[in-house]
Amino acid sequence: MNFTSDNVSGAAPEILEALIAASTSGPMPSYGADPLTARVTEKISALFEREAAVFPVSTGSAANALALATLAPPYGAIYCHEMAHVNTDECGAPEMFTGGAKLVGLPGAGGKLTPGLLRATLEKAGVGVVHSVQPAAVTLTQATEAGTVYTPDEIAALAEVARSYGLPVHMDGARFANAVVSTEASPADLTWRVGVRVLSLGATKDGALGAEAIVSFDPSLDESIQRNRKRFGHLLSKQRLAAAQLLGWLGDGAWLRHADHANGLAARLGDGLAGAGATITHPVEANMVFATMPEAEADALRGAGAIFYTQALGDDRVEARFVTSWSSTVDEVDALVAAAARHISG
Amino acid sequence: MNFTSDNVSGAAPEILEALIAASTSGPMPSYGADPLTARVTEKISALFEREAAVFPVSTGSAANALALATLAPPYGAIYCHEMAHVNTDECGAPEMFTGGAKLVGLPGAGGKLTPGLLRATLEKAGVGVVHSVQPAAVTLTQATEAGTVYTPDEIAALAEVARSYGLPVHMDGARFANAVVSTEASPADLTWRVGVRVLSLGATKDGALGAEAIVSFDPSLDESIQRNRKRFGHLLSKQRLAAAQLLGWLGDGAWLRHADHANGLAARLGDGLAGAGATITHPVEANMVFATMPEAEADALRGAGAIFYTQALGDDRVEARFVTSWSSTVDEVDALVAAAARHISG
Amino acid sequence: MNFTSDNVSGAAPEILEALIAASTSGPMPSYGADPLTARVTEKISALFEREAAVFPVSTGSAANALALATLAPPYGAIYCHEMAHVNTDECGAPEMFTGGAKLVGLPGAGGKLTPGLLRATLEKAGVGVVHSVQPAAVTLTQATEAGTVYTPDEIAALAEVARSYGLPVHMDGARFANAVVSTEASPADLTWRVGVRVLSLGATKDGALGAEAIVSFDPSLDESIQRNRKRFGHLLSKQRLAAAQLLGWLGDGAWLRHADHANGLAARLGDGLAGAGATITHPVEANMVFATMPEAEADALRGAGAIFYTQALGDDRVEARFVTSWSSTVDEVDALVAAAARHISG
Amino acid sequence: MNFTSDNVSGAAPEILEALIAASTSGPMPSYGADPLTARVTEKISALFEREAAVFPVSTGSAANALALATLAPPYGAIYCHEMAHVNTDECGAPEMFTGGAKLVGLPGAGGKLTPGLLRATLEKAGVGVVHSVQPAAVTLTQATEAGTVYTPDEIAALAEVARSYGLPVHMDGARFANAVVSTEASPADLTWRVGVRVLSLGATKDGALGAEAIVSFDPSLDESIQRNRKRFGHLLSKQRLAAAQLLGWLGDGAWLRHADHANGLAARLGDGLAGAGATITHPVEANMVFATMPEAEADALRGAGAIFYTQALGDDRVEARFVTSWSSTVDEVDALVAAAARHISG
Repeated sequence: MNFTSDNVSGAAPEILEALIAASTSGPMPSYGADPLTARVTEKISALFEREAAVFPVSTGSAANALALATLAPPYGAIYCHEMAHVNTDECGAPEMFTGGAKLVGLPGAGGKLTPGLLRATLEKAGVGVVHSVQPAAVTLTQATEAGTVYTPDEIAALAEVARSYGLPVHMDGARFANAVVSTEASPADLTWRVGVRVLSLGATKDGALGAEAIVSFDPSLDESIQRNRKRFGHLLSKQRLAAAQLLGWLGDGAWLRHADHANGLAARLGDGLAGAGATITHPVEANMVFATMPEAEADALRGAGAIFYTQALGDDRVEARFVTSWSSTVDEVDALVAAAARHISG
Repeated sequence: MNFTSDNVSGAAPEILEALIAASTSGPMPSYGADPLTARVTEKISALFEREAAVFPVSTGSAANALALATLAPPYGAIYCHEMAHVNTDECGAPEMFTGGAKLVGLPGAGGKLTPGLLRATLEKAGVGVVHSVQPAAVTLTQATEAGTVYTPDEIAALAEVARSYGLPVHMDGARFANAVVSTEASPADLTWRVGVRVLSLGATKDGALGAEAIVSFDPSLDESIQRNRKRFGHLLSKQRLAAAQLLGWLGDGAWLRHADHANGLAARLGDGLAGAGATITHPVEANMVFATMPEAEADALRGAGAIFYTQALGDDRVEARFVTSWSSTVDEVDALVAAAARHISG
Repeated sequence: MNFTSDNVSGAAPEILEALIAASTSGPMPSYGADPLTARVTEKISALFEREAAVFPVSTGSAANALALATLAPPYGAIYCHEMAHVNTDECGAPEMFTGGAKLVGLPGAGGKLTPGLLRATLEKAGVGVVHSVQPAAVTLTQATEAGTVYTPDEIAALAEVARSYGLPVHMDGARFANAVVSTEASPADLTWRVGVRVLSLGATKDGALGAEAIVSFDPSLDESIQRNRKRFGHLLSKQRLAAAQLLGWLGDGAWLRHADHANGLAARLGDGLAGAGATITHPVEANMVFATMPEAEADALRGAGAIFYTQALGDDRVEARFVTSWSSTVDEVDALVAAAARHISG
Repeated sequence: MNFTSDNVSGAAPEILEALIAASTSGPMPSYGADPLTARVTEKISALFEREAAVFPVSTGSAANALALATLAPPYGAIYCHEMAHVNTDECGAPEMFTGGAKLVGLPGAGGKLTPGLLRATLEKAGVGVVHSVQPAAVTLTQATEAGTVYTPDEIAALAEVARSYGLPVHMDGARFANAVVSTEASPADLTWRVGVRVLSLGATKDGALGAEAIVSFDPSLDESIQRNRKRFGHLLSKQRLAAAQLLGWLGDGAWLRHADHANGLAARLGDGLAGAGATITHPVEANMVFATMPEAEADALRGAGAIFYTQALGDDRVEARFVTSWSSTVDEVDALVAAAARHISG
């Protein structure tokens, strides 16, 4: 009953298999010239219905920071949701990789940016003023930190605001697979077709051990991404390590299968907790459930064997976060719901 | 007959086994709080006969740059051999991670720094002068880029010069296992006992897929390494990926067994090439052989199926580099030697 | 009737005199070893009743960014008012000089930080969490961007919160002289006695042409300030240029005389505008007046010859900012007040 | 008899006059929108026979580092003479401003780069190799650190090598006026006509107190220079401070008059020292004389009242550097020559 994060799980079977095969297949050219990397690029291009450049890396923070460093100059401002991982959980990696760009975190219900606030913020941003950092990029998280997802239309509306200021759009897709399943939209309809220029495509939270891909839809960015990837220590000598994981993940649709599994369990959990009387904070659209309850009740759930994070809200209440993954089980979810039924008073 | 680098090989069996076990062992705390990381730290502390802090990362460039960023301020000078990987093959990663420190490459036979030149250089370095970057650190490569190794006494003599200027010593141990086997010295005698403060301990070239460890012998550095590792995107969420590889590598002495194998084959190859009439450039002390020959003869070796790098020397001569690894075989070496006997005129 | 800023004025007579004397006094050692710099240091130490290290530079942005780069690591968070010059008007200089630290702008009436919000923010800042930038410093602006001043007690209360989290306090004193005059407190009582560790002491807005001093009350910071000043191109070879201006400014109390003049005119202007029916936004405690009025009325004032900035508030209203300086005159102020009486309807 | 540097002198009379006029001429727009800056731009464009963008700053290190930051990406290599000020005397400023680019210092007689070595170095630089920093710019010092000057033909030959690798050329013209006088070439013939894209034009060593101008001949660079100037704290709020100095310097040819004076005295001194038996190390082509002599003789010259730098050569010999400036006098030079005649044995 470990619901702390989708990064506590091990490797999904398809990914492990691919890793074993890659590990034992003899000499391969290093630094990305291997055949597995070529196949990942083909696979991703096919899935996204467009030629894309693909740069495998080991962590999501690296994927995000490298992408943003390509889009924003050191004197740039990058607009994101105030809860965004890049803004709160990467210890300043984007600021570091960009050489000092400024992240501007904006509020928005359900962890989502809104076109209105984005436009209003850009209007006052001092474009062209020498004293002001200059608007440089917008980054969206899909699925969001609140477990919600952007629809293609919502992305398009935000990208349109960005476009009107000449800003490229980056997507932090650490949970992109969950969003694809949730929206039933195609990868293309969630990205380049609605204005996303670079995507951090995350496999780690969805069954890999450590494999993410920077997916660039703009060839003019590739040289910069490639150089920076090396210079920040993120070019793997035996890149087959990451490429194999990505192949196993994407291979026969495993990525969507696992995301569907996780999303389904989150929905089941959300319904169960709501039924038990907990207040569900955000719509459950991906693989995370946020619920508020008295601290004592959260402690009781922990006493029943559940592991999860809480954030104090004051007044002895907490917001609990439950994350499901490819390796979560119906039994675990049902056990947690049963405990909730016993301990949550509503 | 792929002798281009020790990074073209796949995973050694012990490492793959450990990886499989780690991948299927259920939920584990993320970001390094997992039990495997704890065991790696214990294991390395035991092998080095001293409590050490261990920070697994995915690449050697990351290990080196993070270590140097901890030792040198942005206005520092880092002294290294002019052929050092940090100076020539990391696309400016140390300069980036340190915020602009200056690498000062010094010549030296066999890829090795000498205490005399290091001292003479430091004497003229402008210590205390506001206009001059300030001496900040010395970094040694063990085994060197030339396939030689430093003895404990040689390291001690260099560290003594460094110490007299208050400079810490870092060791780039991408091929540390090869040096341990070659010198028959203990890990401790090659590092902290002779003045090394931080070691980049590399497993990737010796059988891992992507696993290196920053090994710190100075607890005052740990906070900075930890912070920077995160901020440069090198803290793995599922750190078991790297920790498992390191455990499999160190586990039952596999690391030294594989290095011994590779070193032995390099020696065999060096003898064979010399016997065939090639000029061996550097003493063959680890897993690399450098040999000069006419370009036409190198081409003939390639025609016989060998893959390797050459560097033009002018006069239609080249210096060829042959690297052996855990996965190289006696048959490959002997086939190359046989080809050399046919094609090299001496 | 130029009220756009206190940086539109030329040099005050005492400063010009000192500059002329310094320019014609023959050879002097360069890079700060000149006698004028020594005298500035003595003078500032005397005025602040404590030995201080003094680093003259040409701009306030440089003074602030160098001071903050000394206080905050690249993975640090720096807390400031959301209107602070460092946060809005230096194009990311602090982020650049620190290597990517994060400025956290907090709201607060009258441009002033409050201890309560500062403490609440620090409580949620993730101290010790590897994913979070770490609280590193607090910076206060004195006088503030809103033309108000902090009392010694207010500074002490903020510094106490900072101290409880181990954070040093920096003060952006671009208008420090105005604050000294306004509070009638001693320089010491406004800085180190109430917890300020480094002060950016600004002369430019108060009569110099380009001279600011980083004043450090903590000798452990001096090496870093000195190095960074050079490395960021802010060590003047003929430092007499800045030192002479500072000497002329501080010499016989000119700095306070000029500030008193400017503050007095601002008060007169504030009263006059209020009398005419404008809404004064912030208490007029230094040399700035903020007043809201319909845009048409602001245009009418401009038509009458006044120059000043406005910020649109929506609803056809604007907030106008009027800044007085050592060179503003009673006649200018009275002319503006007269125009206001004609054009502002209240 | 202070020959330590041309930065020990005060302000030349024309410059001081211009500064006084600017200081007392009432309100002016700030941050470079003042009329003096516009006039400097016109004046420089006229002198260089081409529209140029001009960015006044306070120090030569700032001018150089800002120019190089515009030309080189963080993963770039910048080629310079090993004695170049940017390489040895700016405490890593170019590395800092560029975000970690690498300075590659090349040897060359008389402080001058040679096309042959530059080409040979670039040929081995690993263009396109992901592991190698990429050639990004060439920077020349005019006059050089050795007191020699490049002819237009020499610059053109170096620029041609640079051009063949797609590299822009920067010129550090801290002593540009001395080179103009020495070569009798026009400013245009020494810069853009022979391939220089950006010039650091230095007035400080030639009579200003603190005024340099980045002169850009490539409009595509201007936005970056402008942004970085602000972000590195080098945009003066009262830019008249620097603009006025530059106007006074260039105004009626004072810049060349002062340089001619300094060059003439250096030639006189060089002849005198040679006549006394000292070995002159480099051709005396600008305002610096380098001479080797026994340390005891240098001490005797100091005993006679001369102040200058020496560098130990071993064997009790030193290389002495004598720098003349606009404020040096014939009497001082003759007194030093007389002392040399007494003390130097040849």
